[in-house]
Amino acid sequence: MDNFQFQNPTKLIFGKGTLKNLQSEIPAYGKRVLLLYGGGSIKRSGLYDQVMDQLKELDAFVVELGGVEPNPRLTTVNKGISLIRENKLDFILAVGGGSVIDCAKSIAAGTHYEGDVWDIVINKAVPVAATPIGVVLTLAATGSEMNGNSVITNWELKSKRYFGSILVYPKFSILDPELTYSVPLDQTIYGIVDIMSHVFEQYFHATESAPIQEQIGEAILRTVIETAPKLVKELNNYDYRAIMMLNGTLALNGLLAMGVRTDWATHNIEHAVSAVHDIPHGGGLAILFPHWMEHVAKTRPEKIAQLGERVFNLAKEGKSDAQLAAETIASLRAFWTSIGAPATLSYYDIDETEIEKMVESAMITPTIGSYVPLKAEDVRNLLRKSL
Amino acid sequence: MDNFQFQNPTKLIFGKGTLKNLQSEIPAYGKRVLLLYGGGSIKRSGLYDQVMDQLKELDAFVVELGGVEPNPRLTTVNKGISLIRENKLDFILAVGGGSVIDCAKSIAAGTHYEGDVWDIVINKAVPVAATPIGVVLTLAATGSEMNGNSVITNWELKSKRYFGSILVYPKFSILDPELTYSVPLDQTIYGIVDIMSHVFEQYFHATESAPIQEQIGEAILRTVIETAPKLVKELNNYDYRAIMMLNGTLALNGLLAMGVRTDWATHNIEHAVSAVHDIPHGGGLAILFPHWMEHVAKTRPEKIAQLGERVFNLAKEGKSDAQLAAETIASLRAFWTSIGAPATLSYYDIDETEIEKMVESAMITPTIGSYVPLKAEDVRNLLRKSL
Repeated sequence: MDNFQFQNPTKLIFGKGTLKNLQSEIPAYGKRVLLLYGGGSIKRSGLYDQVMDQLKELDAFVVELGGVEPNPRLTTVNKGISLIRENKLDFILAVGGGSVIDCAKSIAAGTHYEGDVWDIVINKAVPVAATPIGVVLTLAATGSEMNGNSVITNWELKSKRYFGSILVYPKFSILDPELTYSVPLDQTIYGIVDIMSHVFEQYFHATESAPIQEQIGEAILRTVIETAPKLVKELNNYDYRAIMMLNGTLALNGLLAMGVRTDWATHNIEHAVSAVHDIPHGGGLAILFPHWMEHVAKTRPEKIAQLGERVFNLAKEGKSDAQLAAETIASLRAFWTSIGAPATLSYYDIDETEIEKMVESAMITPTIGSYVPLKAEDVRNLLRKSL
Repeated sequence: MDNFQFQNPTKLIFGKGTLKNLQSEIPAYGKRVLLLYGGGSIKRSGLYDQVMDQLKELDAFVVELGGVEPNPRLTTVNKGISLIRENKLDFILAVGGGSVIDCAKSIAAGTHYEGDVWDIVINKAVPVAATPIGVVLTLAATGSEMNGNSVITNWELKSKRYFGSILVYPKFSILDPELTYSVPLDQTIYGIVDIMSHVFEQYFHATESAPIQEQIGEAILRTVIETAPKLVKELNNYDYRAIMMLNGTLALNGLLAMGVRTDWATHNIEHAVSAVHDIPHGGGLAILFPHWMEHVAKTRPEKIAQLGERVFNLAKEGKSDAQLAAETIASLRAFWTSIGAPATLSYYDIDETEIEKMVESAMITPTIGSYVPLKAEDVRNLLRKSL
């Protein structure tokens, strides 16, 4: 196990009817609020009105910024920064999923930075202060509700990058599973893929001896795999939504990364794909991850074999690690297909035309990933196989 | 899953050579330090000198309170409160295991309370402020390094009670596995039992549908059961010590209690036993828990059966839950015996003489525990069977 530091100060407020906790939580940070949200779904579902009612009760001064994109853009971050500065706001309430929360974090840090906030996103500058953030989560997927990471797309540069800081952890996050009932089937599926992918990125780490971290990762995967087929058939089931919501948070709140060098190559590649083509993050991951595993299995099949045995209940006896790894990857593909996730980039009408642009965008360092570091050539091959 | 709130602000600093982080962490809280520790072990191991060197580097004003008891006493808490008030100290550095940290928490809260700190311990008063605490952990067992709980013994009343508060979470906890090399075999064994018991108290919860919480509990148990036999044979192995230390923290940092009504009856009974006889906490738990499970198996064998199947790898086929539960309890007893834990109260020369006193002390409410609530009569029987 490697040395590590872990601190996660976010207060989780989980369960039915917890939206009313806005009343008790917000006043500590001030009542001049930037209300951040995405497309029209929170208006259709009635959540927007409920949130506004809470803010009115508080006698809050509210400035709204809606329309945050599924891959949130730098232009939107800059709009948010301007609104906070012009209106002297002191709190950001992010109502939505990962993109809205990620956008809030970059706004929060960028507001207190004199230069271009993109410097922070690409880790050229370090945040020194941040406007406090509260979250009302509407989607189980991202983990952003309980971490300090923010992924932003610079559409001009076709570049999707991220930063992390202890300063931008949400002060509180309200997780009411009922607020995810309105998430449509495709987004629900993408969320499931995203959660599992977050575990994979940390499970395939480059550190010796981290059995408890791996066992907890397997616990999350088993629970997701058990719950997902039931959830996609019954989107308004409280238990299934609650289990998925908590799993989404636990998969990326720092727990699995304790003391290990995590990978994240597949996320880098997906960011490159969706920076060029603006596809759903979870859809991209479902396509790319089995191909990443196939590449990795050529030299390091053992952990994929372990995953198959412990999570997909594959029989180990009489098989080499390579055989078991191949079965594991087949099981993962079959599982994702069974719940309705895509398997090829052609599903999103992506062909080989812009592969070089994607490779270039993915290779933010000479190699990416740590479990098996990938070179540009590996990423190119992986993308070709994913077409 | 029940509604819940979770917040754990403690900063974990984990790994080799992390003691030097005292330099960077303490100044934020002030340099007038109450240094709290237990018996002479930190002097024998050289840790005391290392800590003092760090504090000298910081030019800190240090007041010492050593000799905190294994079951920390109210009298010691009151000494600490007086020392802080007299010397206007602003920080508590707890160097030790659970008893030293628990003592620090009661001192921290009691300092800011005008009445008798016992009011806080028995939940008659609620803490309103607390002196900040830092921890250097020397024993893998308690979880106290990353939670807000404090267990204190009032020796006059023969009563061992506890309180919890968000105010007394350590600001930081330094966990260097090498600092646990000096823990002798018996204390190492008690720590292992304590960690497993903390999982049991939360695993046997009274809530429907908490699969991820249970799976994470099983992950901790499996890792402890795999590591413990190797650790007791090789007390200076870094990996084994590191795995056990992290498991100890994860077993009681709030993770397993998310959204479930936990039990804690066995801890209540053990507290009663050790309030009367001052035996090691882990030793008491090793004796009592299998008897608790036997009592519970009479009416609710199903979760004990699940534990056997998933953690002790028992074959389920063709067996009733009751049969499988009986095998599980036998497996647990065999495992604890194999690593050297005691199995009967007579090991500590406890006979039936003071059973009534223990029953009375355990029954802090009309029934204790939530998975299967125990009446006084149940506790009496359980203690008799444990003799």
